[in-house]
Amino acid sequence: VQPPAALSRHREPLETYLRTLLSRRHPQKLYAMLRYHLGWEDAAGSPDTHVGKRLRPALCLLTCEAVGGNTAKALPLAAALELVHNFSLVHDDIQDGDRKRHDRDTVWAVWGVPQAINAGDALLSIAHLSLAESLDAGLPADAAVRAARLLAERTLEMVEGQVMDIEFEEWREVGLEEYVAMISRKTGALFDASLGLGALAGGAPPAEVEALGHCGRALGIAFQVRDDMLGVWGAEERTGKPAASDIRRRKKSLPAVYTLSRADAGQREELGRIYGREAMSGEDVERVLALMDALGAQAYCAGVAAQHRDAALRELERSGVVGEWADELRETAAFLLERDY
Amino acid sequence: VQPPAALSRHREPLETYLRTLLSRRHPQKLYAMLRYHLGWEDAAGSPDTHVGKRLRPALCLLTCEAVGGNTAKALPLAAALELVHNFSLVHDDIQDGDRKRHDRDTVWAVWGVPQAINAGDALLSIAHLSLAESLDAGLPADAAVRAARLLAERTLEMVEGQVMDIEFEEWREVGLEEYVAMISRKTGALFDASLGLGALAGGAPPAEVEALGHCGRALGIAFQVRDDMLGVWGAEERTGKPAASDIRRRKKSLPAVYTLSRADAGQREELGRIYGREAMSGEDVERVLALMDALGAQAYCAGVAAQHRDAALRELERSGVVGEWADELRETAAFLLERDY
Repeated sequence: VQPPAALSRHREPLETYLRTLLSRRHPQKLYAMLRYHLGWEDAAGSPDTHVGKRLRPALCLLTCEAVGGNTAKALPLAAALELVHNFSLVHDDIQDGDRKRHDRDTVWAVWGVPQAINAGDALLSIAHLSLAESLDAGLPADAAVRAARLLAERTLEMVEGQVMDIEFEEWREVGLEEYVAMISRKTGALFDASLGLGALAGGAPPAEVEALGHCGRALGIAFQVRDDMLGVWGAEERTGKPAASDIRRRKKSLPAVYTLSRADAGQREELGRIYGREAMSGEDVERVLALMDALGAQAYCAGVAAQHRDAALRELERSGVVGEWADELRETAAFLLERDY
Repeated sequence: VQPPAALSRHREPLETYLRTLLSRRHPQKLYAMLRYHLGWEDAAGSPDTHVGKRLRPALCLLTCEAVGGNTAKALPLAAALELVHNFSLVHDDIQDGDRKRHDRDTVWAVWGVPQAINAGDALLSIAHLSLAESLDAGLPADAAVRAARLLAERTLEMVEGQVMDIEFEEWREVGLEEYVAMISRKTGALFDASLGLGALAGGAPPAEVEALGHCGRALGIAFQVRDDMLGVWGAEERTGKPAASDIRRRKKSLPAVYTLSRADAGQREELGRIYGREAMSGEDVERVLALMDALGAQAYCAGVAAQHRDAALRELERSGVVGEWADELRETAAFLLERDY
């Protein structure tokens, strides 16, 4: 499964813009953390090439084109989206106690928790700075304010989702609807903003901005469900994570939430016992995988993902976007659902 | 020393505005943390009255009046300043490991570090939301964008200052100039934004906004130096903190930075030994106080504070603000420098 070419069309100007935003140098330690996290430098400050997919800005710029806009005006917004996403990753890694992300040490693992908190805070502030500077890129002031409002709203939702996610870890049982409500905030909100801001920068009328935002949100939910599936059934050589890593980490992602909700009394007790342990044995992992299999968790998750992808396509239809760009958005949706990494 | 009446003139509409901003309810845990931190509720959700000084919004609204503006337009900006300040407090308490703030448990001490990180992130996002909503309060779109840019810039500076502050804790010795450069960012930047945003909302021309921003920054530095003095020589019954608390906490605030910079080889070695200990004894504290006394640390700090207050008054002069409001700003400056709590 290859990513569609549309997703990398604006990679270069975006990367250049991001580098300019992070070109401040003082205090050196702060900007070293940020350049490291963005993948341009290693922890010692030497050039590195661990750059992420830049999915959210790509969706933003693609949507700007789709509504007939000039992507130069959307660039500061696209950059802001990537920075908000990375702010959340830096803080997530602290919250989850994760020392590794894509085979690299996380920011807190290198610089400690206090400075990593600052790194995240700085990324969020630079995101807002980038938005405010969108005037310089030719965005009218009223569009810039609407963009700022949209991004702040969606970022707040994302934080709300993160609060729920952490809360769920303490709960005995999470409902399927609650789980979807959580990922709609934690992942869906920023995908909503990605398409919404692209449409806004492209000059689309409010109803179109809204429909494309809804399309983005549904896509984000589908994307997250696919992510949850890869965390359980993904192939290590494709995902770069150990097989069944989300089971080992006892994460209450959709496969686990579903399985718990469908388990009978005996299975429920067994799952409770396994998930209650400090660490899972290989046998425990096998047992959980067998229970998931018996209860049809994989088919269920695939169904949920497809359902939200379909909702995304309906919203795309409703937005009125047609032609070449609509095809690209559809290809992107298909890729996000079929990817194996 | 009583605070001037001007500082509480707009307290009620500000508090009402802040409460509206934080009136969301879901997820309950997030907004419970925020209402607790803002002082309106205790940790169990019952009404509380631990509301802070709201100094930054008061300065913002006072400055708006000083330039002849309508404070209703500045209210969303004033609220944003208070939220940015509180975002920094919530994260600071985690970074410093402080379990108490003004006799109350800190957010992380009640809800844990992961959720407290979220609480700070939410406050910063709501601050930006408040700014974006300033259009509804009648602020023109181009002023709203300039306001958003100013706040994002100053917030980033504040985070930069926090990075420096934490870095200093690991350093053997901090230079006096470096120290002032740090507090200019960590505290000065948001005072700069407080006066700057008030002037901007009041319709002042760019040069006046800038001069009042400089006035605010100098005031912020003076304020912080006074804070540093109270942390060492403040009276417990006034500050609510144990006597010499910043010495006990081995904080490298201005009195310590100054004393270390003036100490001879023997004194330096002794200070190094004392500050290198895991915990300070009462005798250690007495010894540090005696060294500070011998080297004239208190007079030096008072001099630095007065110097920045004078700079603030010169900038006020330069801004062209005169009359009753200029008097109020001067009274406020005097109060910030003479306060004993």
